[in-house]
Amino acid sequence: MRILVTGAAGMIGRKLVQRLLAEDGLGVHPIESLILHDVVRPEAGSAKVVALESDLSAPGEVEALVAHRPDLIVHLAGVVSGEAERNFDLGYRVNLDGTRALLEAVRAAGLAPRVVYASTEAVFGRPFPDVIPDDLAPQPLTSYGTQKLIGEALINDWSRRGLIDGVSIRFPTICVRPGKPNAAASGFFSGIIREPLVGLPAVLPVPRDVVHTMASPRAAVGFILHAATMDTAPLGARRAVIPPGVAVSVGEEIEALRAVAGDKAVALIEERPDPAVWAIVETWAKAFEAKRGRDLGFEAEGSFDEILQVHIEDELGGRVPN
Amino acid sequence: MRILVTGAAGMIGRKLVQRLLAEDGLGVHPIESLILHDVVRPEAGSAKVVALESDLSAPGEVEALVAHRPDLIVHLAGVVSGEAERNFDLGYRVNLDGTRALLEAVRAAGLAPRVVYASTEAVFGRPFPDVIPDDLAPQPLTSYGTQKLIGEALINDWSRRGLIDGVSIRFPTICVRPGKPNAAASGFFSGIIREPLVGLPAVLPVPRDVVHTMASPRAAVGFILHAATMDTAPLGARRAVIPPGVAVSVGEEIEALRAVAGDKAVALIEERPDPAVWAIVETWAKAFEAKRGRDLGFEAEGSFDEILQVHIEDELGGRVPN
Ligand SMILES: NC(=O)c1ccc[n+]([C@@H]2O[C@H](COP(=O)([O-])OP(=O)(O)OC[C@H]3O[C@@H](n4cnc5c(N)ncnc54)[C@H](O)[C@@H]3O)[C@@H](O)[C@H]2O)c1
Ligand SMILES: NC(=O)c1ccc[n+]([C@@H]2O[C@H](COP(=O)([O-])OP(=O)(O)OC[C@H]3O[C@@H](n4cnc5c(N)ncnc54)[C@H](O)[C@@H]3O)[C@@H](O)[C@H]2O)c1
Repeated sequence: MRILVTGAAGMIGRKLVQRLLAEDGLGVHPIESLILHDVVRPEAGSAKVVALESDLSAPGEVEALVAHRPDLIVHLAGVVSGEAERNFDLGYRVNLDGTRALLEAVRAAGLAPRVVYASTEAVFGRPFPDVIPDDLAPQPLTSYGTQKLIGEALINDWSRRGLIDGVSIRFPTICVRPGKPNAAASGFFSGIIREPLVGLPAVLPVPRDVVHTMASPRAAVGFILHAATMDTAPLGARRAVIPPGVAVSVGEEIEALRAVAGDKAVALIEERPDPAVWAIVETWAKAFEAKRGRDLGFEAEGSFDEILQVHIEDELGGRVPN
Repeated sequence: MRILVTGAAGMIGRKLVQRLLAEDGLGVHPIESLILHDVVRPEAGSAKVVALESDLSAPGEVEALVAHRPDLIVHLAGVVSGEAERNFDLGYRVNLDGTRALLEAVRAAGLAPRVVYASTEAVFGRPFPDVIPDDLAPQPLTSYGTQKLIGEALINDWSRRGLIDGVSIRFPTICVRPGKPNAAASGFFSGIIREPLVGLPAVLPVPRDVVHTMASPRAAVGFILHAATMDTAPLGARRAVIPPGVAVSVGEEIEALRAVAGDKAVALIEERPDPAVWAIVETWAKAFEAKRGRDLGFEAEGSFDEILQVHIEDELGGRVPN
């Protein structure tokens, strides 16, 4: 099996590649080659890996990727929310034109591969109910959400015509995000866990009763592997899926932290309300019905305790440092 | 006021232009110039008209249109359903790339005009409830519906950013469509009225209990004029509107015809079931809640009798020939 991963140097991409290499296959299919692409050079790490570095949206690049004739494309490359909002042209060029060009290249090559597309729960925008049903009309309030929604529409149409066999995953916030704190407005959901666990301070800019839906990086990889191998017939023409996730309050996150790392860790969280962050977070969806995603076999953690356990196992070698 | 109409030589475009010229204004605003564009040369008919003929999706064309600095753009140009399904590249080029290019040209020129965009109820696809609520997720089952849905998403994002002030109208089937019978699968909804009224035979390829939502060409023009002049603040970021329409059965159409033209006219309708047409029509939406559209001030006929009356007034000089 030849697998192309775009955005392979990103957080989810790196986790996915680790897992594919560790299992040396996708389900029953051995891996023949793993074509990793990113604007930042992806790590090679195996003889099966072809690491490619370029801008997906530059002329000729997607054609060069598709020339590797992948059976599966996991399309993770993207300009994220804040950046797409600040930089209108960049967001449209990479998220919309890049995705369209990739699909056109696949059509031109006559490949009809499985395509797993990284969409987002940010396709929804206020007002919406506390629990978003599966058939609610997406109404994005960001250019990022708009571009991802358009990507979904293309994936649906290309799939309906048999040009690809696509699945779009509307990812919830992936938490605990490993690595350094970043500037994303959602960063604190991970930061208030990740930093105190290793004895570092963290800032909580919103009230404790804020509720948000999350899944672990391991669950995110699980979504992708499931989307890559599932029977797509039950999807019909509706290729975008809301996978399950855990709707948790910040307060519940903190109690989960206390349970594994004690009051000492919790004391490292400084509550410093930030109206600017609060204004953004307030607009986000709280919870999703995700019945269809569950029925289709997508699986996520059932509680924040489990999400925390995944972080401890996958990032901290299985134990909380003291 | 400078008004640009794309697709101005089409059925709705011609009706709109007639009305604008007859009223010599848009609401309280006198018309300074009317820039009419189509791939087929639009009729001039007034000193205020600038008639332009070119392919909207050809390089440089939208920039040339926007150079007229319109205060209002009514974007009606489009490759229709059947053609967009048969010709994948043409549909994406005109309906998606053409619309995107027009919006980019407007942004580059820094105009921020009102934009009225012709979307369609074909953004919805089966399965759906008998009466489609305003917040149901559109799931198009044609490339045409996909392209129009993407157009709506762009109109929303451009409007949210203040680059335009857009309104997308999800037109129902416009009936009675004047002119010659055409190859559209929906043609019979108009044909079984238009032809018998002037003593010509017509074929009915589906059962009489088929229900479909319609509005007259006059109502379609009304939707556009309302969208062009309404206060858009109540739309928020959700610029796509389902306008009202009449959900009527073919049987009700026939009885309306009988009431104005007698059994002699009805006898000209030959019921000749066509499984191919039936298979397409079966997938179409029956009825729409359209509460939001009504609340926003969009108006349509209340019965098929009224639609028929509009046709008699506007196309037959006010009386049924005998
Ligand atoms: N992590 C989350 O919580 C989350 C939630 C919803 C959706 N998503 C989506 O999932 C995907 C992966 O998420 P992630 O958290 O790994 O993001 P990430 O930012 O860590 O990774 C995205 C990768 O795309 C690459 N990229 C950006 N522009 C590119 C270009 N022009 N050409 C080639 N590569 C380019 C970046 O270099 C980066 O490595 C993204 O598309 C993201 O929008 C993520
Ligand atoms: N009439 C309906 O029942 C209905 C229903 C839903 C949506 N709509 C939409 O409303 C709009 C107008 O509908 P209509 O019934 O007048 O359609 P129409 O086909 O009569 O008019 C469309 C016009 O667009 C023009 N056009 C096509 N490609 C072009 C290009 N590349 N450059 C410039 N012009 C081009 C055509 O020449 C035509 O004159 C269309 O976008 C249509 O999709 C119509």
